[in-house]
Amino acid sequence: MKRPTIHDIAREAGVAKSTVSFALNGLPGVSEATRQRILAVAGELGWQPSRAARALSAAQAEVVGLVLARPTGLLEVEPFFMRLIAGVEAALGADDIGLLLQVVGDDPQHELEVYRRWWGQRRVDGVLVVDVRVDDQRLPVLAELGLPCVLVSSEVPGSGLTSVGLDTKAAMVAAVAHLRALGHTRIARVSGHADFQETVLRDRAFAETAGPDAVIVAADYSGERGAAATRDLLLSGQPPTAIVYDNDVMAVSAVGVAAELGLDVPGDLSIVAWDDSPLCRLPHPALTAISRDIPGYGAAAAGALLRVIHGERVPDAVFGIPELVVRGSTGPA
Amino acid sequence: MKRPTIHDIAREAGVAKSTVSFALNGLPGVSEATRQRILAVAGELGWQPSRAARALSAAQAEVVGLVLARPTGLLEVEPFFMRLIAGVEAALGADDIGLLLQVVGDDPQHELEVYRRWWGQRRVDGVLVVDVRVDDQRLPVLAELGLPCVLVSSEVPGSGLTSVGLDTKAAMVAAVAHLRALGHTRIARVSGHADFQETVLRDRAFAETAGPDAVIVAADYSGERGAAATRDLLLSGQPPTAIVYDNDVMAVSAVGVAAELGLDVPGDLSIVAWDDSPLCRLPHPALTAISRDIPGYGAAAAGALLRVIHGERVPDAVFGIPELVVRGSTGPA
Repeated sequence: MKRPTIHDIAREAGVAKSTVSFALNGLPGVSEATRQRILAVAGELGWQPSRAARALSAAQAEVVGLVLARPTGLLEVEPFFMRLIAGVEAALGADDIGLLLQVVGDDPQHELEVYRRWWGQRRVDGVLVVDVRVDDQRLPVLAELGLPCVLVSSEVPGSGLTSVGLDTKAAMVAAVAHLRALGHTRIARVSGHADFQETVLRDRAFAETAGPDAVIVAADYSGERGAAATRDLLLSGQPPTAIVYDNDVMAVSAVGVAAELGLDVPGDLSIVAWDDSPLCRLPHPALTAISRDIPGYGAAAAGALLRVIHGERVPDAVFGIPELVVRGSTGPA
Repeated sequence: MKRPTIHDIAREAGVAKSTVSFALNGLPGVSEATRQRILAVAGELGWQPSRAARALSAAQAEVVGLVLARPTGLLEVEPFFMRLIAGVEAALGADDIGLLLQVVGDDPQHELEVYRRWWGQRRVDGVLVVDVRVDDQRLPVLAELGLPCVLVSSEVPGSGLTSVGLDTKAAMVAAVAHLRALGHTRIARVSGHADFQETVLRDRAFAETAGPDAVIVAADYSGERGAAATRDLLLSGQPPTAIVYDNDVMAVSAVGVAAELGLDVPGDLSIVAWDDSPLCRLPHPALTAISRDIPGYGAAAAGALLRVIHGERVPDAVFGIPELVVRGSTGPA
């Protein structure tokens, strides 16, 4: 069964192709009875207007783009992006908008080429931009291209681009307050990529809540670097009694490192993950974690992008309220 | 900077819009000198042909579709799909083909609606189909639609659809032979969704290699069900000394269950994961795992789909050779 064409409808309805075309496009010159008969035949045959033809006339691709620019070794293990994508899909699906995805590895220049091509060829109506960096070189290019976009990020003053962020400070306060209440004073932090804007914001929030002398070790979200940072901290002269990790993957690896060093969790070491995900429930003990509604966040960002695409001025927004989910990995100091 | 249009080129080149249109579409009626000047201006302005216009004339969307029909709670934690997608992207990117992604939850009817819409609206030129089920109701519909597709699956005789599979039997033999060589005789298996074709093939391969009396507990790839199945097995009258899991997530959860029950891994229990992923390196001990080149598999399936789209008859194929990566989670019985 091939896709039905206007030709098939014309044959089936016993009219000329041009009559079908006029009827389907709502143009005058076709009697109401004929129009209804043609529409009935089109419906029976399962005919649908070509997306390409609609895109050409509406100048809308009805597709939104997302470029993931991280090493695949990391993309594949961190649940964050799949959760974000699931939320984005939920928001787009309601409007019958597609999500075009491209994985480019850790290469901002390649990413910019993709944006230029997508926009130049009208493949997308707009894009969601993730992993915003300090002094991100992509942002002025995106602003100049005129490609509608939303930063899945805290606001970037002066960028001229709409952002939808999460409340980093409130999340950090919740994590550190929980550990302080358990009597911890030597609290450390293992961070993600040092050049990500989010990392800088969390570093600042951590210094403000845990004190300026609190130790921060920079890692990169990977299990390997997270484990190495944990070993460094635990084998140092003044090991922390609690560590807050910048993602779930590094926190899960920390449970493995503690087992390897013969340390009890939470007896010798309390562990906090950020963000909560099903991964946090796999180890024993399960991980206490900062919980944020990441699918909801994706849906909010996609919703903002649709408004930007429709020409609205959309103010920067902060989505949701972080919560701390307390499980077995945190206990008294 | 807006996207340059034919109007901009006409103004810049000092000619009529129709002249630009003729020149860019290679139609007669424009002098060679004018054509070259117009092309030079178009190049300077960064003009690119509209993807929608090209799609309309070539009847090609230059986009390939992938529907993921699983609960998001599972999608987000299992690295398999991100690894597969990374490989698919690598194969498509070389030909400048996009990947349109849709997450629909565990709902085959919804999935079929997406295929009908994509194909009817010419949004995609073909699709990759994953998670093939026993007596899969999607396959006859796909065959009838005439939508080019490749099953990311072992061959399905009689479906009339091209498949690219992995060698399940060889993988199972490698896992069980390793455990037998370590002296294990009570080997169990915790499986994924019972209605997936791949699960049935693995069940059969396990019965053939571990013996028809070897215990199989059906789970669903999730950490929760994997942990519950592990507890059932370990608390039974005749607990196994080794368990082979159908994915990485369930195997990682088993390390947690062993810790919870006070069992040593691998002293009291050997654990084998399938497929290997960065997740398998997070626990302590790290997991012995069946390793298959999943990104390479995704690239092979995408390559086969491009050939199907171009009208070739592509035979069913089996991709790659599985290997067992031995780590700390397996030891003498």
